[in-house]
Amino acid sequence: MNKQDIQELMDLFHDPGTLPEGGVTRLAYGPVEDEMHGIFRQWGENCGFRYSTDAVGNSFLCNDAALCVPACPLVGSHLDSVIKGGRFDGVAGVVSGMVLLKWLKESGSSLPLRVGAFRCEESSGFGRSTVGSGLITHTIDGGAIADFRGKEGKTFREVFAERGLSLYPPMIDCVSEYLELHIEQGKVLESLGKEVGIVEAIAGPRRYRAVINGFADHSGATPMDLRKDAMAAAAELILAVEAAGRAEAGHKSVATVGIVKVSPGVMNVIPGQVELGIDTRGIDTDSIDRMETAIRRAAAEISETRGVAIDLRVQSEDKPARMNPAVRQGLTAAAGRLGISHHSMASGAGHDALGFAERFPAGMIFIPCRGGVSHNPAEYTTTDAIFTGARVLFDYLLFSGSSLPSA
Amino acid sequence: MNKQDIQELMDLFHDPGTLPEGGVTRLAYGPVEDEMHGIFRQWGENCGFRYSTDAVGNSFLCNDAALCVPACPLVGSHLDSVIKGGRFDGVAGVVSGMVLLKWLKESGSSLPLRVGAFRCEESSGFGRSTVGSGLITHTIDGGAIADFRGKEGKTFREVFAERGLSLYPPMIDCVSEYLELHIEQGKVLESLGKEVGIVEAIAGPRRYRAVINGFADHSGATPMDLRKDAMAAAAELILAVEAAGRAEAGHKSVATVGIVKVSPGVMNVIPGQVELGIDTRGIDTDSIDRMETAIRRAAAEISETRGVAIDLRVQSEDKPARMNPAVRQGLTAAAGRLGISHHSMASGAGHDALGFAERFPAGMIFIPCRGGVSHNPAEYTTTDAIFTGARVLFDYLLFSGSSLPSA
Repeated sequence: MNKQDIQELMDLFHDPGTLPEGGVTRLAYGPVEDEMHGIFRQWGENCGFRYSTDAVGNSFLCNDAALCVPACPLVGSHLDSVIKGGRFDGVAGVVSGMVLLKWLKESGSSLPLRVGAFRCEESSGFGRSTVGSGLITHTIDGGAIADFRGKEGKTFREVFAERGLSLYPPMIDCVSEYLELHIEQGKVLESLGKEVGIVEAIAGPRRYRAVINGFADHSGATPMDLRKDAMAAAAELILAVEAAGRAEAGHKSVATVGIVKVSPGVMNVIPGQVELGIDTRGIDTDSIDRMETAIRRAAAEISETRGVAIDLRVQSEDKPARMNPAVRQGLTAAAGRLGISHHSMASGAGHDALGFAERFPAGMIFIPCRGGVSHNPAEYTTTDAIFTGARVLFDYLLFSGSSLPSA
Repeated sequence: MNKQDIQELMDLFHDPGTLPEGGVTRLAYGPVEDEMHGIFRQWGENCGFRYSTDAVGNSFLCNDAALCVPACPLVGSHLDSVIKGGRFDGVAGVVSGMVLLKWLKESGSSLPLRVGAFRCEESSGFGRSTVGSGLITHTIDGGAIADFRGKEGKTFREVFAERGLSLYPPMIDCVSEYLELHIEQGKVLESLGKEVGIVEAIAGPRRYRAVINGFADHSGATPMDLRKDAMAAAAELILAVEAAGRAEAGHKSVATVGIVKVSPGVMNVIPGQVELGIDTRGIDTDSIDRMETAIRRAAAEISETRGVAIDLRVQSEDKPARMNPAVRQGLTAAAGRLGISHHSMASGAGHDALGFAERFPAGMIFIPCRGGVSHNPAEYTTTDAIFTGARVLFDYLLFSGSSLPSA
């Protein structure tokens, strides 16, 4: 049980999807994510753990003890990444689970443990996050996302059919509690100089698709006063989204336009149509509602002023999720026993724990990442930090045993 | 000599690049543009005209008389289109030239005539307009555009090498004057109820590429006050470009952002980089300069306020081009002789005549198009309108003979 264990596991996952400029691209339900799951499986089978997969393509490893109990702790995270993302988002959590299996075995413990690697946690591939964990916790309805289209041009329905998977899997059972370690993806721990964060609640993303229809016309021959420029209208809406987020910053809410698709998107044509992807988040539903009101009001004003049509629809919504108080308390106690500095905090980012928290007692550990940078090739955390977080989880498991009731 | 001649020629060019939703996509130096040039050649050879091509892939047809004189009139336009464009932009001009060859032959005239179909008039393919005509008039420097990249991912340098073409062709000779018929792509003729426009000057596009560098970060975990959102900054710049155009509307100037590329362009990442394509035009250089000053001032302010880097560069520039007074007078007189209503006007859009006007006496005829709509599948003009414009050119040619001096 040393930090070299962490380094060896992180190294296993180093190569897939590596970009020339650093960082990785490992899109959900694509060949690079498959390769990551293959590494997970190979390592587990080499170590003598039991491998299984489920109806949506998630991968699991468990020890023999887990086969003898009706339910046991599940530690998990994901192996996909955003486009041009980092090596730690998700992978650090899966590696933590793997090292727990290894440490339990080495210590001769008979504690049962299952480790999960969930598919499609990032929305970069299909515009929908936490898909693998959401489907098996029945917190995402397969029918509602079936027609979401991935970067490769195929829908979930098509990709699942090709892979022999089901959008309507049975609900996962045999889980007594869910645990996840993740990089913070923010600057709070770094700024406070704390080693781990104990997550109180996860912000729920509410996402919108806005389609602005103006009129495509010749950029040279159309006077300024005769235009219906969809991109100029979109620019106003983008700034209104930012303003809505800023107005709710005091409630820890945020609002972002990450997707802008312009049609036809050429130099000499006034844009006729623009599609925006809008992501709002918060841990306070009232605040999320106020942002929606502000964005809808702005859309209506822009539509009227400019004579363009704006169709703004909620594309997906996850409610903010509270972590289980007993699990939080247990994780806090474990950090205390080990003399590891800790801080109770909210998660701005969504995680696989979102869905599990609705079905099972769930808890999350954050570890700091340099500059709070994530979803970027510059994303970085230390082997020490992952090791420290994994030790908290290990101590927690040893101490609590399987004392929590199964769901 | 009847309007059925026009309809038959337009029908020849109907199919290539037709889209299910109507309209066409015929990108420069692509297979569909090739197909259009093939139709041009096939028709000419069937009729007994002489076909030739030049070092940049432009196509020419001429009658036998043209082979016996050092220089003769050249009538031309282009066969490429924007993405989701119309069937008349460019094609109407080439068809007019073709029908003039036919009418001269049928009338037994010995007047020499050459008709040109120029490559890559639209900037939709490679971000640079009037390439075929600009290169052979030495008004575009091949070295300056060699690295422009097309929609298919290849640069001009690569495409020209594959096709055995040269970015450094000899200057076109044997041209006594250049004539072009084109749809107006604006609403002036329609609103005045005039049959043809006699173009005074063509607005020169000055185009910019702006690259805005912020910082890509997690959209959920990055508080609003810690962001460097390249898209929000770009939105401000887009609105500043629009404002610059509006402020100069009285001088018939326009400004448009037609290209917006967001990186990474996914739901859960704050945009780290945005690239904009900015198109400004006018017939008054002072007004174009004032727009540039306003846009640069806005970029500097946005950069300072938001802490993002903005690199704004002129990508291409064409000076406004005056048509030859004698040619204009001749075209006006021809319309008068035929009893065709006409109006002297400026062209907001660029045309192949831009380059030719710098080297040879040049003139242009506009014909109305429905609602002024162009660069759009709804683009439309009537066979009658093309016929009327072609008659003006025919009468002009017959009347002036080859009396104009060669350049």
